[in-house]
Amino acid sequence: MSVFSKVASIALSAAIIATPLVAQDQKALEAAVKARKSQMTLFAFNLGLLGGMAKGQIDYDADKAQAAASGLLALTALDASRMWLPGTDNETMDNTRALPAIWAEGSDIGAKAQAFGEAVGAMDAAAGQGLEALQGAMGGVGGACGSCHKAYRGPRN
Amino acid sequence: MSVFSKVASIALSAAIIATPLVAQDQKALEAAVKARKSQMTLFAFNLGLLGGMAKGQIDYDADKAQAAASGLLALTALDASRMWLPGTDNETMDNTRALPAIWAEGSDIGAKAQAFGEAVGAMDAAAGQGLEALQGAMGGVGGACGSCHKAYRGPRN
Repeated sequence: MSVFSKVASIALSAAIIATPLVAQDQKALEAAVKARKSQMTLFAFNLGLLGGMAKGQIDYDADKAQAAASGLLALTALDASRMWLPGTDNETMDNTRALPAIWAEGSDIGAKAQAFGEAVGAMDAAAGQGLEALQGAMGGVGGACGSCHKAYRGPRN
Repeated sequence: MSVFSKVASIALSAAIIATPLVAQDQKALEAAVKARKSQMTLFAFNLGLLGGMAKGQIDYDADKAQAAASGLLALTALDASRMWLPGTDNETMDNTRALPAIWAEGSDIGAKAQAFGEAVGAMDAAAGQGLEALQGAMGGVGGACGSCHKAYRGPRN
């Protein structure tokens, strides 16, 4: 076997061994992005009802408002670390708007996530207590969403 | 104005008035399907980790297992009534596999959902208590998933 063949053979073997691992990693990254987009969809689904009620576009219903707010709060309990894996930013992957700044030094993503959780907690306490209470909690939630999107969400692909 | 014109005019007015309402309804139905598919994605994302650990494909980690199980449990708290609206079956809409039987007389979807919730509760109690405990709770969760899918999920589109 020539030196070239030997090197090629080793390289090929390495590629064969490495490919499933890389594919597996890629699959995990794709799954992470899909999961967090699903979480965002469900945030929006529940916030849509609360926002519609707050604006008077949907009749206020204490039970429905409370269910939506409790749903929001439940969704904040999902493990973020598995959904926001390093290597899932919009410079590395096509199907996300997440900016690399999320994972960069000086990122305050943790503080922003905590602020969102607190605003959702306040909404959960208020949503079933009447339209004015719901309206009073809406600004905090919307502000927390916007603050994170402004800092860490890139343009649409 | 002829009788015909008058009728046509009334019909047109009715159509103009009705169109936004119908569009709005259709939007709500689409949003409901999208939301429940997102919930299913997140069920699968968390079950994937627990199942991988149960099978020995992923190293058991008590904290990660507990986080995934707690996530599953949180997801069961979402308000199902808004996501499973009548009119969102696979005979009425294209992008769902939900069979009309879910909404038909004699449907036991509520009992199946409750059984799933109980199985997930058992998983939440077990997942952080060691690999064997996790494995012991896996069958109940998988069985509850399968029971509902077998009865109420149609073929892929």
